[in-house]
Amino acid sequence: MHISSLSTPCLLLEQKTLDANVRRMLARAEDTGVTIRPHLKTAKSAAVAELATASKRFGITVSTLLEAEYFARHGFDDITYAVGIVPSKLDRAARLMADGVDLKIITDSEDVVTAIAHHGAAFKVWLEIDCGDNRAGIPAGSQALESVASPLLSETTEARLIGVLTHAGHSYGVDDRTAIARIGEEERSAVVHAAERLRAAGHEISVVSAGSTPTALFMENTDGLTELRAGVYVFFDLDQQSRGVCETDEIALSVLASVIGHNRAAGKLLLDCGGLALSKDLGANSFRPEIGYGVVCDIETGKPYDCAYVSSVSQEHGHVKVADETLYEHLPVGSLVRVLPNHACMTAAAYDRYFVVDSGNVIAEWDRVNGW
Amino acid sequence: MHISSLSTPCLLLEQKTLDANVRRMLARAEDTGVTIRPHLKTAKSAAVAELATASKRFGITVSTLLEAEYFARHGFDDITYAVGIVPSKLDRAARLMADGVDLKIITDSEDVVTAIAHHGAAFKVWLEIDCGDNRAGIPAGSQALESVASPLLSETTEARLIGVLTHAGHSYGVDDRTAIARIGEEERSAVVHAAERLRAAGHEISVVSAGSTPTALFMENTDGLTELRAGVYVFFDLDQQSRGVCETDEIALSVLASVIGHNRAAGKLLLDCGGLALSKDLGANSFRPEIGYGVVCDIETGKPYDCAYVSSVSQEHGHVKVADETLYEHLPVGSLVRVLPNHACMTAAAYDRYFVVDSGNVIAEWDRVNGW
Repeated sequence: MHISSLSTPCLLLEQKTLDANVRRMLARAEDTGVTIRPHLKTAKSAAVAELATASKRFGITVSTLLEAEYFARHGFDDITYAVGIVPSKLDRAARLMADGVDLKIITDSEDVVTAIAHHGAAFKVWLEIDCGDNRAGIPAGSQALESVASPLLSETTEARLIGVLTHAGHSYGVDDRTAIARIGEEERSAVVHAAERLRAAGHEISVVSAGSTPTALFMENTDGLTELRAGVYVFFDLDQQSRGVCETDEIALSVLASVIGHNRAAGKLLLDCGGLALSKDLGANSFRPEIGYGVVCDIETGKPYDCAYVSSVSQEHGHVKVADETLYEHLPVGSLVRVLPNHACMTAAAYDRYFVVDSGNVIAEWDRVNGW
Repeated sequence: MHISSLSTPCLLLEQKTLDANVRRMLARAEDTGVTIRPHLKTAKSAAVAELATASKRFGITVSTLLEAEYFARHGFDDITYAVGIVPSKLDRAARLMADGVDLKIITDSEDVVTAIAHHGAAFKVWLEIDCGDNRAGIPAGSQALESVASPLLSETTEARLIGVLTHAGHSYGVDDRTAIARIGEEERSAVVHAAERLRAAGHEISVVSAGSTPTALFMENTDGLTELRAGVYVFFDLDQQSRGVCETDEIALSVLASVIGHNRAAGKLLLDCGGLALSKDLGANSFRPEIGYGVVCDIETGKPYDCAYVSSVSQEHGHVKVADETLYEHLPVGSLVRVLPNHACMTAAAYDRYFVVDSGNVIAEWDRVNGW
């Protein structure tokens, strides 16, 4: 089936581009000698996870317990839930372990560590370390590090601290590879230092986990790390492109949309992909304001039209400011476009499936797990 | 079941508040003598549609054909699909009509009108009029009005132009009721003028449809209108509150979230509701920057904590800047909060269900239809 038979808006995934992106990260893991633990928060798809793990179903990362449950059903049994857990979610986590999942949970809170230690299940815990992102995590140099972890040294609990994890979210604040590499080194040195301190305190730390797509790709020294986590690299997006992490033609994900109107008086063309179909993420615009909510491309070549981007959105309308009047002729009402997403993780979340495409034809339909 | 037993994040709907909001709009319809055609793009829920139509299942508005199909399955047979249709969607629309739905479709495009006229099905068409919003629609004074509509006068087609529709999206650009009323009058006069011109051209225009939540509530003169459309009024949100349309305690929708971390070094508290759980909509911030992605409230009283709002988000993390250190004591890690949404339509779209709540207890679970 040709993509022109699909009902719009819908999500297209270019198989060849996806394959190349996955190979790039697997090659990077080979080069560095550090395992990649793909973060499935972007794709939320078992089919993508199969590719990202080279069909070996090795360790993956997830951002919700629902994802963990979904991937467990699809045969993935080494899963890190990489968002700080709370006591009320421990029973759900323990059920996954009872079902055979080698689950890892994370926290940076003394109260949560205490709850984990008293729960009764043999949780495998990773401590979250802040490497400069200022989101979650204990700073690697903090005096609190050992005290937060100490309940997991107790002989009265089977729960154990076995890893440390950090995420350099601030690698999204720069747009050149030298700066990304510098942040990658901050990330590495912070989490390795935390691991050393916790080992000295008596914990058997076997996992030292760092990563984000930018730092996983451009970090220069991986000494002391045992794994890299990255997610959006499977699809890439304009957010990554704007930061110099990928090229536009490496973006595997797009939204297929219809032109639903020409408003020549207002100088705009309207698409049936609005804030719900694209998301309202404007992350890429810090470095490239001419991205808006997404860039409009030809459906056959996948190439962007000149200066055509979704400059504003309402719920179901994407507004494309028309800089060159010939765009109206290229794109009559009823014609199709592909819109490259500003931020793939946010855009994909509005859909329950991917239409996998090769040479303009749908060759597969893959599901996604949304929600919590 | 008390809401504290729910897994976070999830969507709460306060039944009493919802009921009051629905009654307010039904009373408004009674006062003005103009029917309300609820826009279900916000709620996407048959249970809410039942309430909004006072169990009479009178005419509703939808923003996707999937919504139309869902509501048709739930016994709603008078449905307006209020986003410009394209030729490729006409077969799907015709199937709904074949299944007994009195479906109305809209467009502002001569090419689409021609395709509708040649399709073969007896489509009921409403022409979209631009009343100053500059999104979609033909300006009421445009010379093109009659020519765009003319194929629907032909005796060779059963499709007919029976209505005109406008939406004053620019009513969201002001924050006082006088200004809203003024825009409401622009909306009314534009669509009534278009109806008169089209009647003069020979079309039997029986529907003159205007509306947005702000203008439907505060428009002073409704002469010539046959119906008002509004959607977000069922839930309200901070976007409406910031524009003076509702009070904070009239917001029926909230996200139940857990505190997953205290990052005292960075002066923030972290919630498990990030960009996916809240959306990245910042519409309310035009008038009230201290709303961020949502305002943090006590789960029992529903009242906002002082100066506590989600100031930034990553995919699964909501960051609350802590202005007053006592917030850490009020909200230990693992405790629950309710977050009032910046924009209800966008926030609700991340969830497949509502937990309907009265006095802190879940009294029902209602589904939603997402996607296209």
